[in-house]
Amino acid sequence: MNNSTVHEKHTMSKFLKLAHKFNSFYLNGFQKKECRAFIVDGIQVGLVRATVTIELSRYPNVFIINPNSVTLNPAFRDYDERSANIESVLKDMKDKKLFITLKGWRDECYEVRTMFADQPLLKMDRSATCLFGICNYGVDINGYVNHPQKGLCIWLQQRSFTKQTWPGKWDNMVAGGLSVGYNIIETAHKEGEEEASLTADLMKNLHSAGTVSFFYESERGLFPDTEFVFDLELPPEFVPCNQDNEVEKFELLTACETINRILSPDFKTTSCPVIIDFLIRHGVINPENEPRFPELVELLHVPLQSLYTKYDNVRTENGLSKGE
Amino acid sequence: MNNSTVHEKHTMSKFLKLAHKFNSFYLNGFQKKECRAFIVDGIQVGLVRATVTIELSRYPNVFIINPNSVTLNPAFRDYDERSANIESVLKDMKDKKLFITLKGWRDECYEVRTMFADQPLLKMDRSATCLFGICNYGVDINGYVNHPQKGLCIWLQQRSFTKQTWPGKWDNMVAGGLSVGYNIIETAHKEGEEEASLTADLMKNLHSAGTVSFFYESERGLFPDTEFVFDLELPPEFVPCNQDNEVEKFELLTACETINRILSPDFKTTSCPVIIDFLIRHGVINPENEPRFPELVELLHVPLQSLYTKYDNVRTENGLSKGE
Repeated sequence: MNNSTVHEKHTMSKFLKLAHKFNSFYLNGFQKKECRAFIVDGIQVGLVRATVTIELSRYPNVFIINPNSVTLNPAFRDYDERSANIESVLKDMKDKKLFITLKGWRDECYEVRTMFADQPLLKMDRSATCLFGICNYGVDINGYVNHPQKGLCIWLQQRSFTKQTWPGKWDNMVAGGLSVGYNIIETAHKEGEEEASLTADLMKNLHSAGTVSFFYESERGLFPDTEFVFDLELPPEFVPCNQDNEVEKFELLTACETINRILSPDFKTTSCPVIIDFLIRHGVINPENEPRFPELVELLHVPLQSLYTKYDNVRTENGLSKGE
Repeated sequence: MNNSTVHEKHTMSKFLKLAHKFNSFYLNGFQKKECRAFIVDGIQVGLVRATVTIELSRYPNVFIINPNSVTLNPAFRDYDERSANIESVLKDMKDKKLFITLKGWRDECYEVRTMFADQPLLKMDRSATCLFGICNYGVDINGYVNHPQKGLCIWLQQRSFTKQTWPGKWDNMVAGGLSVGYNIIETAHKEGEEEASLTADLMKNLHSAGTVSFFYESERGLFPDTEFVFDLELPPEFVPCNQDNEVEKFELLTACETINRILSPDFKTTSCPVIIDFLIRHGVINPENEPRFPELVELLHVPLQSLYTKYDNVRTENGLSKGE
């Protein structure tokens, strides 16, 4: 009996359906083993699809392709050398217009490592990490209001229609990727100011509330993602104001309206975990209205930090060694 | 490289060490595959250690033992028949004093199923579920005070010295297993009243805040466990008062004192996940003071709901079918 059969024995709630959607690779893709492990310095840091492997095989000085792995040439001995060699390949592939995701080249890099606490092995433009299944890290701020009449209300943003990814979709009030050079708190403050004009005074209420982890797959690539989640209670009279032209508009929604919004096709799929986690922590989604509550919570925290190391274990048990 | 090697590359924080302790089976035992799958009605619902299997093999009318599985006789066709047959075996083993855990026979049953949303297949005395690696479910109430001088404070209880399990250890303010006949909210109210005299008026503030899931192993047995977590803000003047003689005393601790308490050997290991989750959701443990924060959060939500179904997948892939 495979995993999806087991899950489908029960009626899936609307939230669980969403959790399956933003975990499409974790629940369905991962088991197929159609991807090759991406190995850097003897450690798996990602996964590469067959379509990407074909293109990487055109750079034999950079990548060593084997039946189960794509290995970055071990001759590149340090962070800078690895980063520079990958960048030249990616820029070449970008110029050849091979992958839609590279159209969104950002000149903004993410660190590449297996676990968050690892020393980064290289950096890579954020538009390219999905080609290698590199875990992305980001920061999200749930801006909320305890409204005297409407109760718990949540600020959402509509993304600008000119954005490369998810244009015009509804999204969390403030969210941003953890780029090279910024730590978590710096990213929260930077994005809070740029996206919603959150002043230092308002940000005094900011508090860390955990993480969500999920593994999404789309036609663009593979998206293992961990978001550092912050809650920020805002005064009822505050209205966010965008500064970086990446936001179309903001709207303050009641908890009920927020649920309808995340369930609509107008919401960015990969931003749903943060909102669902917020609604769970604040008691809106609870075991009385969600029969598969433990499953939903687990699907907001899938084990990304050990996924590639475990994957290695399975492969090794099956007689495939890492470097082959 | 196995999982523990990867983890040990980094210095483990004190919280991560605790998370490894309460996930001893998830991180170390599970991979060893020394246990047999426990199969009921064609579905894996648990795991049985070799020492338990030997004893179960003395009841060939009840259990069918194979190299990779222990199957409850499929001739028992319904919930009542399965429950009665298991109970007679367990009572016999209890009389023979074979397993220390059965000394704590409670005449209080837990439901047996693979996932929380499944229809229960049978019930079993709560003292025996760890012999079969059955997932336990419980309810916890974090009673806390926003103290005008001391800030966030948390009520903890010291367990009675006469308790069968973890006597005299420190524990969450209110916690109780989800027994046959009680739903989650009923259990919260029942335990809140019995353990701490929480009145209906105080309980109006109770709010659901999620779940924690972990998989602990001790000399007694295997403990996959999911706790439904509730937060309850209490007025500074309230003092909990025990009614059922299961509590030695209560104490109100600051956040800092709470951390020292859970890190001491005087705290019940399997109650730490609920407190750590509380401290994370309230910003006390955060990415600035915990370098391995994503890993810690993931180890509070290990994928128990899909663990046995995935385990089946691995076994099936290796050419072992379920019923063998």
